Order: sequence, then structure tokens, then C-alpha cells
Amino acid sequence: MPANSFGELFKITTFGESHGHSVGVIVDGVPPHLPIDISYIQKEMNRRKPGQSEVTTPRKESDNVHIASGVFEGRATGTPIMLVLHNQDHDSSAYDNLKDVFRPGHADFTYTAKYGIRDFRGSGRSSGRETAGRVAAGAIAKHFLSTFGITITAYTKSIGDIHCETIDFDVIEKNMVRACDPEAAKRMEAYVLSLKEKKESCGGVIECLVQGLPPGIGEPVFDKLDALLAHAVLSVGATKGIEFGSGFEAARMVGSEHNDSLRKQGFVSNNAGGILGGISNGQDLLFRTAVKPTSSIEQEQETVDRFKNEQTILVKGRHDPCICPRIVPVIEAMTALVLADCMKRQHALHCNKEGYNVQNT
Amino acid sequence: MPANSFGELFKITTFGESHGHSVGVIVDGVPPHLPIDISYIQKEMNRRKPGQSEVTTPRKESDNVHIASGVFEGRATGTPIMLVLHNQDHDSSAYDNLKDVFRPGHADFTYTAKYGIRDFRGSGRSSGRETAGRVAAGAIAKHFLSTFGITITAYTKSIGDIHCETIDFDVIEKNMVRACDPEAAKRMEAYVLSLKEKKESCGGVIECLVQGLPPGIGEPVFDKLDALLAHAVLSVGATKGIEFGSGFEAARMVGSEHNDSLRKQGFVSNNAGGILGGISNGQDLLFRTAVKPTSSIEQEQETVDRFKNEQTILVKGRHDPCICPRIVPVIEAMTALVLADCMKRQHALHCNKEGYNVQNT
Amino acid sequence: MPANSFGELFKITTFGESHGHSVGVIVDGVPPHLPIDISYIQKEMNRRKPGQSEVTTPRKESDNVHIASGVFEGRATGTPIMLVLHNQDHDSSAYDNLKDVFRPGHADFTYTAKYGIRDFRGSGRSSGRETAGRVAAGAIAKHFLSTFGITITAYTKSIGDIHCETIDFDVIEKNMVRACDPEAAKRMEAYVLSLKEKKESCGGVIECLVQGLPPGIGEPVFDKLDALLAHAVLSVGATKGIEFGSGFEAARMVGSEHNDSLRKQGFVSNNAGGILGGISNGQDLLFRTAVKPTSSIEQEQETVDRFKNEQTILVKGRHDPCICPRIVPVIEAMTALVLADCMKRQHALHCNKEGYNVQNT
Amino acid sequence: MPANSFGELFKITTFGESHGHSVGVIVDGVPPHLPIDISYIQKEMNRRKPGQSEVTTPRKESDNVHIASGVFEGRATGTPIMLVLHNQDHDSSAYDNLKDVFRPGHADFTYTAKYGIRDFRGSGRSSGRETAGRVAAGAIAKHFLSTFGITITAYTKSIGDIHCETIDFDVIEKNMVRACDPEAAKRMEAYVLSLKEKKESCGGVIECLVQGLPPGIGEPVFDKLDALLAHAVLSVGATKGIEFGSGFEAARMVGSEHNDSLRKQGFVSNNAGGILGGISNGQDLLFRTAVKPTSSIEQEQETVDRFKNEQTILVKGRHDPCICPRIVPVIEAMTALVLADCMKRQHALHCNKEGYNVQNT
Repeated sequence: MPANSFGELFKITTFGESHGHSVGVIVDGVPPHLPIDISYIQKEMNRRKPGQSEVTTPRKESDNVHIASGVFEGRATGTPIMLVLHNQDHDSSAYDNLKDVFRPGHADFTYTAKYGIRDFRGSGRSSGRETAGRVAAGAIAKHFLSTFGITITAYTKSIGDIHCETIDFDVIEKNMVRACDPEAAKRMEAYVLSLKEKKESCGGVIECLVQGLPPGIGEPVFDKLDALLAHAVLSVGATKGIEFGSGFEAARMVGSEHNDSLRKQGFVSNNAGGILGGISNGQDLLFRTAVKPTSSIEQEQETVDRFKNEQTILVKGRHDPCICPRIVPVIEAMTALVLADCMKRQHALHCNKEGYNVQNT
Repeated sequence: MPANSFGELFKITTFGESHGHSVGVIVDGVPPHLPIDISYIQKEMNRRKPGQSEVTTPRKESDNVHIASGVFEGRATGTPIMLVLHNQDHDSSAYDNLKDVFRPGHADFTYTAKYGIRDFRGSGRSSGRETAGRVAAGAIAKHFLSTFGITITAYTKSIGDIHCETIDFDVIEKNMVRACDPEAAKRMEAYVLSLKEKKESCGGVIECLVQGLPPGIGEPVFDKLDALLAHAVLSVGATKGIEFGSGFEAARMVGSEHNDSLRKQGFVSNNAGGILGGISNGQDLLFRTAVKPTSSIEQEQETVDRFKNEQTILVKGRHDPCICPRIVPVIEAMTALVLADCMKRQHALHCNKEGYNVQNT
Repeated sequence: MPANSFGELFKITTFGESHGHSVGVIVDGVPPHLPIDISYIQKEMNRRKPGQSEVTTPRKESDNVHIASGVFEGRATGTPIMLVLHNQDHDSSAYDNLKDVFRPGHADFTYTAKYGIRDFRGSGRSSGRETAGRVAAGAIAKHFLSTFGITITAYTKSIGDIHCETIDFDVIEKNMVRACDPEAAKRMEAYVLSLKEKKESCGGVIECLVQGLPPGIGEPVFDKLDALLAHAVLSVGATKGIEFGSGFEAARMVGSEHNDSLRKQGFVSNNAGGILGGISNGQDLLFRTAVKPTSSIEQEQETVDRFKNEQTILVKGRHDPCICPRIVPVIEAMTALVLADCMKRQHALHCNKEGYNVQNT
Repeated sequence: MPANSFGELFKITTFGESHGHSVGVIVDGVPPHLPIDISYIQKEMNRRKPGQSEVTTPRKESDNVHIASGVFEGRATGTPIMLVLHNQDHDSSAYDNLKDVFRPGHADFTYTAKYGIRDFRGSGRSSGRETAGRVAAGAIAKHFLSTFGITITAYTKSIGDIHCETIDFDVIEKNMVRACDPEAAKRMEAYVLSLKEKKESCGGVIECLVQGLPPGIGEPVFDKLDALLAHAVLSVGATKGIEFGSGFEAARMVGSEHNDSLRKQGFVSNNAGGILGGISNGQDLLFRTAVKPTSSIEQEQETVDRFKNEQTILVKGRHDPCICPRIVPVIEAMTALVLADCMKRQHALHCNKEGYNVQNT
């Protein structure tokens, strides 16, 4: 089954390549009557778009999103909502020298291995531009979740060896790297700019915090909440791992230390990260994602072409020295899509006569 | 959509609770003519079953697997294969005191929140016993993959602060913790037994290595190979995270360090962990999973019951002080199910007249 | 994607062959708390089983159904319900002569073409026995629907040239052919018995009437209610067509005649058969299914074997001279499964904060 | 699960309303390297578009189709192909009087019942315009099938009481009603024009013939070929029934008459309509679809509005007196989508090492 759709009851299908006619998404399953605000969607798009700051690529794309269907007089009608972004005229000739050669760290080699044919202009379908549709759809999901009081906040937790010590939501959108600690943010910015000068790149860790999620969300045994989030997040390019709550640290702990006790007022700790047995427990949901250094660096690298000739390649262009700040809204969008889907699935589970809704906590 | 099925073209559906009539699985999509060897399936079941050693629960379950359909004269017929394990008579009365109280670290609280009703005997559907069906189905997937020369080997990489330094496949099945380093294995065994004495438990890290996987496997943009494996692995109880290749370490590296160069003879390093852009690149596939300490410990713990009364609970019983050795075959099984599915999906992609098969590397 | 599952939110997966170990079904998505009554399920099984009367095959199968999972203290737990029927000892040697030869009207030829291997004993997976699992699952769906006041009644409308003139629900279960008109039923019985004597068989038309279905059920644009019912019904063996409301007669009508007017008290006619634009309109839902004559007749027939040699075949055995009375409960079951699924899908559509349920008529 | 997608391995998702920004489709699963010819797709669009002749609506829509993604240098890349048709400026004010009133025979009432909100302009999502995306996607499916030598031909078989006696492929595109018999076509045209004058409409029967389909296609037990085709065809507006081969006539036949014998040179008759046990048998595939009279007629009709007030309505506008000729390409498209999907599913079934392709007839 082809894999350009994601979700069951709140379901998206994306299309488009970096240098094609347009990119976009069909969102199916949006509850009728939900207000759809194009300016809110555009605002999310702007958090993802290139050229926001000195630490992102200076490419300029307007990233204007349009609604093509499914909305009538400002509200969802229950029919598919198509959101489209028209690509601007690119000079694709700049990519001609990449037609047959595989850039290290990129999907050039594997797309050729899989499909035998690829649109090599601007990475084609494997371009980060594909995530534009995800963010647009995620904005609708976020708004849907907000009606339940659920909020999603992601931020850069570490870059290189610089770690955030505090979590201050107010500073995230005010620093170039979208870090949650203003002091660490400054050091991160300096570090990234120094790498940029050296035509080098770096990775980092992004943390995502969900507040207001009710208990009971997630679908055992295969679509546990953590399993779905891991699927969603690792479907984003450049991610290398994910961990929930105590995460890899749990491997070093003992049982009495790791188990979260329960008292009248709730759980006394949160090693679980808000999920037990694949179902939300009402605490904050917390996970972290590892992001690798941007593969595109303007340095000579050794590689081969599709005829297996060894080559030295220098990828010119305007690349992100650190992709973390632009991945933050993508992680939020994928999280929102999973949660919107799971809220609907939990609702569907309890279909019955009495008001069609029996929650049984 | 209910979530007791997994996979698209090689698809399983599991059923059963710990203390019910039986547990099992329907495997749909097994290629007709594939030999099905019940003794091979049973051998895999035995690696998962309780009572294997001093570091696993001493419960005795025969775990005999039966084929109920889909196999004729030793071969798959292309129709669904049902595999069933009959539960033995349990004394469920031992669980009566757990009817209303939530064990810390377990899914008792969240199952109640989600369903409003639960079979509390032996953890019911959230019991590790549910994985029996996965391992049975995984055995068929493994055999299918072996016809392509693909092998899957998981092993305990670390427990507590003890790490394997070497990877020796030959020792894995010869030590109680299924570690890949005979020297570390001894120290791990001693550590786990000392915790057992203290009625304590521990977690660890399991690594999984896939060899012989051809390039081109995995389905962008949403069913990337790493995304599917993360989904599969995090749907297993007790897992807290997953990382591929360089994993969380990638967050500390720079681009020139992380990119794997290509030469005539292949990639010169494997930070990618065998996956680029969500598609296998022909190298070894490598990932690690964090496992939390077993939640069941025979110690007094603080909790509440479903009426929100605070309680002190002491869970008697025979529990695994370290679940790692029994999770190893489950991780292998889930990996096999993902890869079998993806092999079929790549095959389906290239359907055409000329022999119905054009691979285009 | 293998096709032994049906439904999205109320989903079944069947397994089993005629002469294998067992047949059965996993039902996933049953709302937690729904009472599950094994005696009601068994009662439905008995309507489908062979040996009920002189016009069905005299084969005796006890068809006892067992619950293997998903039910606790008489209620669904929201986890998969597995229902199993163990096959009785069959003398499969009777089928040895059918190993290589294709019975006219049966799936022998096409199963061989598709799979290259088949369990030829008692038609294997293509046996009518496969529908046992559907009827068992359908019983649960029917019970679920009954909580909304929805009832499903199917009956034989015509056999050969004999047509029912009246619809009397009370007589359906009291005549051998499950006709809805007592007078026609007698003539049908006599007709079928006369064919039985001649070692001949016949088909008929089955009508299905759904009462109490609320408006708004069905999922445009691809899962319209009529489309799903057609899919469901034509997945049952021996069916050759389906029509809704005016059906094929509509092809001969003009617009002013066919359109159902609306008045305060509702629609004034029902050419629509209860469905407009793929969505239920609150009227009775009505459709008819064509059933072909049973393929198994104890007469010499011309055919070929798998080596393309021409053969004359005489299929001995105890066959149904008219399958209609036994297909009636299968049609009801498939209808129930579609409607249960669609009720849940409509419920899922309107997920929102205010009680999780806004119906907006 | 929302239902604007269709197919498993060759999968489409449609979007768009009659008077919105655009309508279109994403086609996922097109084999890489398949040539994509926009002029061929446009040619199919032109067979569906309004204003073709005196018996169709005189509305003029250019129906120009554009490729937005998934095609590179004239070939499919294996990534999703988005096809879009921009709607032209409509005067939607003409529909203002239909805002609250339900046109008889239309989906106005049921869309309101289901969603509680609807885009009433030009029937919105329930407009026949939605089929434009299906026809565009079907054109790609048809081309894919043609590489296997499979052809699909639909035609009007009867209108009112006028039936085609011969089947002449050459005349279908040469008469206004797309009938297969030139003599009957003339009488049908005269009949439709006479109804048009009376502001009346009519229905008909469309037959579809598939040639060149290999045996083995179709997926028991739930996705039998006839079940999938029935699902596909009944998801098209205005259809009321479907029958395969002997169809409803089978209900009047006896077994020895209905069974198709087999000889060395093949089947000697085709009551099966090319399908046995839900799988193609290598004969011509043949089915018929009932089409109701167009609901839009320029006559006074009795109805109610959403406040349950009785109304008399006169729907002005330019409507199709007989929709059959425009449904012919839609039936072909839906058939092509089902067959393309099933060809891929059969291919996927036989995935194995030896050339990845073992057909076993």
C-alpha cells in the first residue's frame, strides 16, 4: 500500500516535489462545523518556512497556503479539505550536476535503488519541502485539539553539547534556534553561526510537551500512543531516534525507582512520560527526538555516481546549518495529527445509544 | 479503527488475554507455497516463554502452538494462517485483590480510563502474554525473509551500567540474559540475580542487527523503514525509546563527521544505521531499544484504587527481574513482520508486464 | 493487502477451511460494556447450519461456537473477541478424486489459477463454511444495532418463477425456504423438492429490509451505504447481483415518476430504497440479491483437469438443492456488519467537545 | 475512517466541490517508469464533460486537467500524482433559493442529516463533478492495464424500453447516447430528446465488458472481484444496482443450465460473467449497472425545507435528460481502478525469491 497517507479517522494525504508545480495535502475527517482559519494555518507555515533567520537557509519562499475545498463560510463541511502551496519558479538547472551522483547523507542513492527513477531537482519528493503539507494539516489538527484544551509545545532541548536547563515557553519563538532556555539559546546561536562559517552543520535534540491530554487516549495493542508518535516523528527526515519520559535513562534504573506512585492528587513522578501500556494517563506527555546534522554541507565529500564511479562532490547552495528550529513546528504538527486521530478513535470506541458517549473513568 | 492488526501486505491480527481461553494470531498475506514448519515456530515460542532461566519468571507455561488454518500439506495456501496457544488453567483468584487497585507502572489505571471495564486477571490483554501471537507470526516472517538471505539478530546490549564490548552471535543463546558479549553476560547475570534477591528489577538496552537486506526497502513518506520499525518496537510493552545508527549521539556530531561517504566498495561508515531517507541502503540495519525495569516488584508501593482511595500494594507473584532476554525474540519478531511487509510492498510497487518485476538499482 | 478482514471501526477477520482444524472470526471494535450472549450467537449459527430441513444438505454439523477472548463477565471489554467453531472429523478421502479436476460453477479452477495450490477438501477456503464466522460476528453486530432500535430482516422473495406477494415476517422462520409469503412458500418447497429428486438445483432472490435506521448513515464519496452493502453482499458466494429500491426497474422509469417527494410526515414513496447520495434517509432500507442455482449437482458434467485433459465429472455428496434459506442469515449478518461499522463511523465524524456528540439534523 | 480514498495498492483520494476552487485527485501507487500522457487523460475527461451533445447538459466547462506532481520527464516516479481541474467562475447566486430546501431525488436532505452543514452551491461535494477526479485517475489505470493487454469498454445497453440487440464497439463513440447498437441508438436519441422537450428525464442500463483479463485476479474472501466492482460502481451517483453475467436471470435458472462447462479450448458458456469464487477465470468479464432517471427535472415538485415546511420547488437550470452517456466513462474509470489495484495485489501475493514472481496456473 502506497504510503503518502497518514492517520485513520483524521487522515492526511500529501503530494508534491520540491521543484514541481505545487505541494499540498488533503485532510479527510475534519469534524463538520470546525472553524477553519487560513491566517492561523499561514502562521504555522511561517514557522516552518526557510529564510526566517541567520541560522536557517536564506532561500526565500513565500509559502502562501490556499484552501481548495472542504470549507464553506469559514467552517469545515466534513468533506476533504485540500490545502495547496504553489512552488515558485526555481532555477532547476543548478541541480543538473546532481542528476547521476549521490550526495552523502541524502536519499539520492536510496530513491534510485527503490524507484529506479527520481526527480533530482531540489531533492524532489525527499525534500524537506514535503513537510509543508504536514504543517498545514497539523494546524487544523491543533485547532481541533485546542477545543478540548490540549496544547502541544516543542522546542530545541540541546544542540551539540549545549543543553537547556530551564523550560520557558515564552522564549521559544524569540530566539533563532527555538530553544526553551534563553541563556542556552544564546550559546546555541553562537555555536551554530560558528559552524555556518566553517561550512559545517550540526544536529540537536527536540523535546515535545503535550498538556491537557485526557487519560484513555491511544489504541493497544499495535497503535499504542507512543508507537504512533514514534511512527509519526520518525517519518520526518533527519530524525534518528525518539524516547518517552525517562527514555534511554530507564535502562539504567531499578523498578522501585522507575515506577511512578499514585496518590489522591495524581502521579507523584513522570518517568512514564504520560503513557502507560500505550494509553495516556492524564499527566503531561513528554518525548524527545534526536536530529542529525544537516546532510548538505558546502564541503568536498567523497561519493559515487549511479554508474559506481567514485566522485568528489561539492554541494553548493544555501543550506540550514542547523535544521532544529525548522523541525520544531513539524514535530508539533505530526504530534497534533496523531492526537487528533486518537481523540476520534477513543470517541468512536464508545459509540452507544446513551448520548453516543460513555466515558468510563 | 481498532488496533489489533499490524502490517499491510503481510498482516497479523492478534487476540487473547492472559487468563482467557487462548491467545493467538491470524497471519494474512503469507505467499502461497511457502513451507510452514511448526517445529521452527515452536522453537521461537520457546525463546519467549517464561521459566527459561533463573532471571526470568519461574511460571511454567507449555506455550504449545497449533496451526488451525491456512496450511495444506506443509505449505501456505495463501489463505489466512491461524496460530493458537491454549491457556492453561490459572488460579485467577490470586488476582481478586487487584480488581480495583492500580499497580504502579502497569496499565491498570489507563485500561480503566480507556475502556471502563477490564479483565484484571493476570493483566488481561495488556499482559506480556499477548506477544506470544507476535512471536508465532514473526517466525513465519523470519522464514519468508530467510528465503531472500535476510537474517535478524537481537541481543541485550546493556543492563544497568554493564555494556557489551564485543558482538559475538554464538554466545547470545548461551547466556541467561541473551547478551552478545560473554564476559559482560556474566556480570549482567550476577547483577540481575542480586536485584532478584532484593525483590528489585532492572531494564536494559536491546540492539537489533539485520543482515542481507537489499537496498530500496521502506515506503516514503509516511511508512519510512525507520518509522515502521519504531512503530512496531514501541508497540511492545516496557519499551521507552528507539534509536537508529548513530541515534541520540548524532545530536552531538557535525555534518562532515556524520555523513557516510560512498566508495566503489560501498559506504565507508554506518552512522545511518542502514537507512537513508526512510529506505534501506544495503548496509547492515542497526537499531537499539530502551527497556524499562519490570514494573512488577514484590515491594510495598503507594497507589490508589478506582475510587481514588490511597492504598499500599504488595504485588505477590513470580515476576521477571529483568525482561530483556524475553523481549529479544519479540523485537526480532516485530522486525521480521515489518521487513516481510516492506519486501512485499517493494515487490508490489514494481508490478509490470515484463516478468512482473523490474528492480531498478 | 490480503482480504480476510472487513470493516473499518467494527472490523472482522475470518479464518479457516471446510476440512481444517477450525473456522472462526476475530471481531475488533466492539464497544466495551456491550453484553455478549453466547446463546444468541448460537441461535444465529443454527439458522445457517446444514441439515435444517429437507431442502438443505443433510450433512450434520453441530456448529457450536465458543468465545476465546474479549469477553469478561458477560460483557465486551473493547479488546478483540475471537469466536471459534471446531470442525468435526471429516472423511476427506471422499475428495481425493477432486484433487486435480475442476468442478463446473465452483472456484476450483480460479483458486488454482490464483494461488497455484489449494486445499481441495470440501472446497477448502471457498467453502460456504467460511460464512460461519461472518454469521457469528454478525450476531454481535445485530445485538449492537438493536440497542439503537435497528432491526434487519432478510427473506426469500422468489425462487424460480414463484414470487412472494405479501411480506409476513412471522412466517419466515416457519417455512423451509424462509419465504415471506406462506402461500408462495408452499409452492417453493414443492418446487425445490421436485428439483432435488431430479438431482437438480435452483436459485432465487433474497430481499433484505432494515427498519429503524436513522438518517445520516453512510460515507461518501467511496463508502456510500449502497456501495458498502453491495461489497458486503457480493462477497458472499453464489450471489450474482444486487439492487436497491426501484433497482433495475429504475432504468425504465422517468424522473417525475422516480423522484420520491417529501411531505411533513416524510417521504411519500421509496424508490430510493432508503438511500440518497449514499446516505440513509430515515426510510426503510431495502435491497434484493440474486442467488444462482447451487453449483453442486449430482449429474454428469463436462470439465477439464489441471493438466487440461477433458473429463466427465459426477460430484457425489449431500448438497443443498436451493441455498437461499441458508444464505438469508448470511445476508443479514453482512448487512449488520456494514451498519454497525457505519453507525460507528457517523459517531466518529462528529467528535467534539460538547459531549463528544453533535448530531446536526 | 473518512471515505474519500479508494483502492489499496493503486489508490486514489479525491477532493473538491462543484463550485469551489478546484476538483482533483491524488493517485498513489502508480508504478515508477509508467509513461503518463496528459493528452490521453484529457481525452478521457472530454468524454465525461458536460455539453457534449444535445442529450447532455449544455453547461460549458473546459475541464482542463493539470499534473501537479509525481511525473518527471513524462514518466511516473512512484510518488503521488496529483491531478487538478480548476473550477470556472460560477454564478452561485442561482443556488441561493436551494439553501434550505431539499430537492427530491438529490442528496440535499441526507447531506444535511449527516453533516449538519453543506455547501449547497451546485450540489457541492455530491455533485457529479466529483467524478472528474475519478476519470482522470482512471485514465492512468487504463493505460497501466493496457500494458498487460487488458481493455475496458462500457456502453449504454438500454434506455427506457429500448434495448441494444448487437454489440458494435465502433459505434459507441459515434452516437449521442453511447449505445452499442446503431439502430437502437437512433431510437434512444429520439426518445431522450422527446423527454427533454417534456422537461422529463430517463435512466438506462450500462454494460461493461473487460477483455484480456488474466485468470487469478480478485481477493477472497472479502475483496472478491465482483464485490470490489460492485463497491466501485455503486459509489457512483445515480446507480441503483449491478449484476454479473447471468445476473438476476440466474434466480430463474437450474443448476445444469447455469454451470459453465469446461473444455480443452476453455469455458463453453459465460453465465459466470468471467468470475468464479470472486476470482477472474480468464473469460470476458461482463456486468451491467442500472442508472436511475436524472433527479433534476424542470418541473414543479413537492418537498420540504430544513424547517420541515412543505414547499413546491422548480429546479431551473440546464440538466442532463439522460446521464447514461456521461456515466459510461465513469464506469470504465472505476472498473480500471479496481482492476489496476487487483493486478498489483495478485502480483504482491506471489512475492518470492525466484524472480519475485511465481504465477502458478
